[in-house]
Amino acid sequence: MRTTNLFMPTMREVPAEAESDSHKLMLRAGLIRKLASGIYCFLPLGLKAMKKLEDIIREEMDAAGAVELLMSAMIPAEPYKESGRWEVFGPEMFRLKDRNKRDFCMGPTHEEIFTDIVKHEVRSYRALPLMLYQIQTKFRDEIRPRFGVIRSREFVMKDAYSFDRDEAGLDLSYEKMYNAYCKIFERCGLEFVAVDADTGAMGGSGSQEFMVKSEIGENTIAYCDSCGYAANDEKAPCISTGKKSDTAEESLVKLLTPSMRTIEEITSFLSCSPTQVVKTLIYMADDKVIAALVRGDRELNEAKLKNLLGCTMLEMASPEKVYEITSANVGFAGPIGLKELTIVVDNEVSDMKNFVVGANDTDYHYLNVNLHRDFKADITADIRNIALGDVCPLCTAPIALTPGLEIGHIFKLGTKYTKALNCVYVDENGQEIPMVMGSYGIGLNRTIATIIEQSHDENGIIWPIAIAPYQVAVVPANMGDTAQVSLAEEIYIRLKAIGIEVLLDDRNERTGVKFKDTELIGVPVRITVGRKAAEAIVEVKNRKESDAVDMGYEAAIEYCRNLILG
Amino acid sequence: MRTTNLFMPTMREVPAEAESDSHKLMLRAGLIRKLASGIYCFLPLGLKAMKKLEDIIREEMDAAGAVELLMSAMIPAEPYKESGRWEVFGPEMFRLKDRNKRDFCMGPTHEEIFTDIVKHEVRSYRALPLMLYQIQTKFRDEIRPRFGVIRSREFVMKDAYSFDRDEAGLDLSYEKMYNAYCKIFERCGLEFVAVDADTGAMGGSGSQEFMVKSEIGENTIAYCDSCGYAANDEKAPCISTGKKSDTAEESLVKLLTPSMRTIEEITSFLSCSPTQVVKTLIYMADDKVIAALVRGDRELNEAKLKNLLGCTMLEMASPEKVYEITSANVGFAGPIGLKELTIVVDNEVSDMKNFVVGANDTDYHYLNVNLHRDFKADITADIRNIALGDVCPLCTAPIALTPGLEIGHIFKLGTKYTKALNCVYVDENGQEIPMVMGSYGIGLNRTIATIIEQSHDENGIIWPIAIAPYQVAVVPANMGDTAQVSLAEEIYIRLKAIGIEVLLDDRNERTGVKFKDTELIGVPVRITVGRKAAEAIVEVKNRKESDAVDMGYEAAIEYCRNLILG
Repeated sequence: MRTTNLFMPTMREVPAEAESDSHKLMLRAGLIRKLASGIYCFLPLGLKAMKKLEDIIREEMDAAGAVELLMSAMIPAEPYKESGRWEVFGPEMFRLKDRNKRDFCMGPTHEEIFTDIVKHEVRSYRALPLMLYQIQTKFRDEIRPRFGVIRSREFVMKDAYSFDRDEAGLDLSYEKMYNAYCKIFERCGLEFVAVDADTGAMGGSGSQEFMVKSEIGENTIAYCDSCGYAANDEKAPCISTGKKSDTAEESLVKLLTPSMRTIEEITSFLSCSPTQVVKTLIYMADDKVIAALVRGDRELNEAKLKNLLGCTMLEMASPEKVYEITSANVGFAGPIGLKELTIVVDNEVSDMKNFVVGANDTDYHYLNVNLHRDFKADITADIRNIALGDVCPLCTAPIALTPGLEIGHIFKLGTKYTKALNCVYVDENGQEIPMVMGSYGIGLNRTIATIIEQSHDENGIIWPIAIAPYQVAVVPANMGDTAQVSLAEEIYIRLKAIGIEVLLDDRNERTGVKFKDTELIGVPVRITVGRKAAEAIVEVKNRKESDAVDMGYEAAIEYCRNLILG
Repeated sequence: MRTTNLFMPTMREVPAEAESDSHKLMLRAGLIRKLASGIYCFLPLGLKAMKKLEDIIREEMDAAGAVELLMSAMIPAEPYKESGRWEVFGPEMFRLKDRNKRDFCMGPTHEEIFTDIVKHEVRSYRALPLMLYQIQTKFRDEIRPRFGVIRSREFVMKDAYSFDRDEAGLDLSYEKMYNAYCKIFERCGLEFVAVDADTGAMGGSGSQEFMVKSEIGENTIAYCDSCGYAANDEKAPCISTGKKSDTAEESLVKLLTPSMRTIEEITSFLSCSPTQVVKTLIYMADDKVIAALVRGDRELNEAKLKNLLGCTMLEMASPEKVYEITSANVGFAGPIGLKELTIVVDNEVSDMKNFVVGANDTDYHYLNVNLHRDFKADITADIRNIALGDVCPLCTAPIALTPGLEIGHIFKLGTKYTKALNCVYVDENGQEIPMVMGSYGIGLNRTIATIIEQSHDENGIIWPIAIAPYQVAVVPANMGDTAQVSLAEEIYIRLKAIGIEVLLDDRNERTGVKFKDTELIGVPVRITVGRKAAEAIVEVKNRKESDAVDMGYEAAIEYCRNLILG
């Protein structure tokens, strides 16, 4: 490709709207442009990188025995209504009606549709296992689109679905996908970690997220350097130290704490540590009210609580409801005297003595509260997020935490969707049995952005060769110099002939401008054809190295061949 | 690919819902499944054919100097509001709101968005010409989806947009695209014709449709076997024979014609030919009322009428409006005595004598009506569709008509969108000038369906090699016979190694079932490994030929190599 034919609008300025390095670079290098909040168009360089990734994914999916098809992006409401997710998705689902007022959505994920197709087309156990995938545009009306294509509202996803006869079959399919995912991310040059994850709203029995450690990650990974354990902090169990406080129980005191609603306010007022305070959080679990108690400095883990209670919906009670339950404003709830609700106490709280809780009386707290003596727990369990100071659940070494960005997610769904949609097969004995299902997703846009997050410098993107839109840039220093131009053309044609994707920077621009663009768009190798063109000597620079090297042009071609074609 | 690993749900029965051959075969061969009216999913064999077509299109677009990018499918309303098409598209546009109540649509076509991007990224005349394209899913809420993926509501389109400095540049870009389209459809093995087309709602100065002649075509192509002229019947001009009737004008008669509203009713009542009757059609052209007169057996051509009047909206007047204007019910309108409206008379009518029209009085017609004597024409022009009996506008040989199916469309848009969205470039003199634009579309889904319409027999699809999902099927006749299975495996591996896409039918099915499926899904070459496997002899059958030929397996491999790799 000649640069003059390419549509490559690079920018010198750092766009004000961009928050993360990848977002800035994708805009500056002319990979993407924003059309609306969370909705982007991929310009030629961005699309080429996406297509490279698509090809890698397709190869690994095919190698794993998955078969590609393509569902529609617009989907009738019925299958989602059958599975219950028409409601569950809430405002995150883009909905629309056709001219006959029939309900449709723009597919946020396609479990229901794959289940529906398989239900109609597969009857016999002989057709199983079956693994299907698509590379398809998805739509989710994110409440807060961020970081360019990392959290966008329209994005491309590879989603695969496995259908097996039983759990053992699912385990095999899951393992194949796990291995395929590792290969895909390795080929992208990514440093990643597979972490245990909560199955959340998707349902199912097991799940792992493929994460990259990243400052802009919106998840937290809990990991152990000793044994290699890694999990989403929502999923990582908190292991009780078993060390109960041996302090004597002191007398309960009710104290006026005017307007001290938050942990910060009450600890500052009482000059105590948040580890001496217990938060009482009032939740609605489906139709039931529950109170959840965790230490003042801890985060309640809603996923753990939801799994514990086995409810389908869990949300914080409204201030009105809190008042109705506790007879106090928000900030003064506590377990003492609460009636007709379930009190769930975090394991850690059950080891505490003489702690502070709200008094269910606006502007009052209790001091020196003790479990059993002052209130009863209906359930004691692990309901908080893991934190620094906790230990690895496998080897009890100290746990480490890091922000992580999810790029892939694999799920053992079990029979959640196949039962809901009655997707059964007939076994050897003529029995109808629900298929056992898995679901496997990779976000392509965010994988591209993540590669840039992990691989760039102050001058621009540093593409891994496997993803680079162009692998080599040939830069004639002076377009007015015939010797330079004709040698550059020769190298361009020779490299193309051996199957290398080359950009010939034939613009009438200063060499400095061309160099800056080449670095910015991350071309792995730059071959500059300058003053020594007459001697057939060119300058070769690897994007990953700081120094350029002079060599004969045949040697330069050979360098590219070895580096790129292996 | 082994058939046991493929998801290929074929059907023996002809699906009741399918109206056209391609629709039936696409369902039966397991290429597509319907998810909702006009919304289809592409199963593996269908998707593979689509990808083949995509690659052909991409190669020809790239060769023509077009650069690929990818807009979003979901598009904010603003650019469409600027161009006026937010209204023009009407209920055909799928509209939705995001969680902030902002208006979006699912892109029906992307002129506005490409114009918007180019407007922001291109300033200088040096960056022009620029040709951009995408292969993208489009959404149109068709009032009557039909023929499977031929007229569907979600479909894949290659749309390209050229941006030039002037009309001469546009002519060049247009010609490049014309040539690329011819190459694409030739590579698909299609018999097609490029016809002059009306520019319709898209605006612009010139346009051609790529059509295939087809029984299920919803357009009519007027063509001339003598000189090669071809046009959409909406566009083809009707040439007046200039032969005026020399009959004497007879006396005007007003006749009671109770309830004779239609041409059929009145001609039957009067025992006359529809060529002796003139229809008077009342239209609203923007805010003006007009009466359009065409011979009783002709179809008014709204495109011609609209272009003639230069109006933006043209629609038939409501029955209430017709009553208000004519003082008569629908069916009795006529030109005599009509006031304060424009009367447009088709050329042909101006050559007629003593014809029948409505009397603007319910249940009455006039007989022996004559132009000039009984009423005046404000405009006389060509406002009807061409028909059998008309002549070629180029060479005056008789014109032929055939139904046609549109598979591609190229437009000279001019400055319609660039002016509306203020997409300008700065020329050599620092002047801001609107870019001159072209737009070029191919419907991929309907191209695939059209290939099947043109190339099938009673047993199934006959894929051209360039589009065939698999080029060769290797069929072991008896999966229990080790010699057959191992020779089949050998051939399978050898063909794959030389780059041929092979399907190994490893199912435990009767040979007859395998043959039927292979024919149905249209594999160009079938190699059957049967009883003569021990002698290394196989049976080769070309899908296009009726007889199979025995040959040595090396010869069979050579046959495939020559046929497929050329």
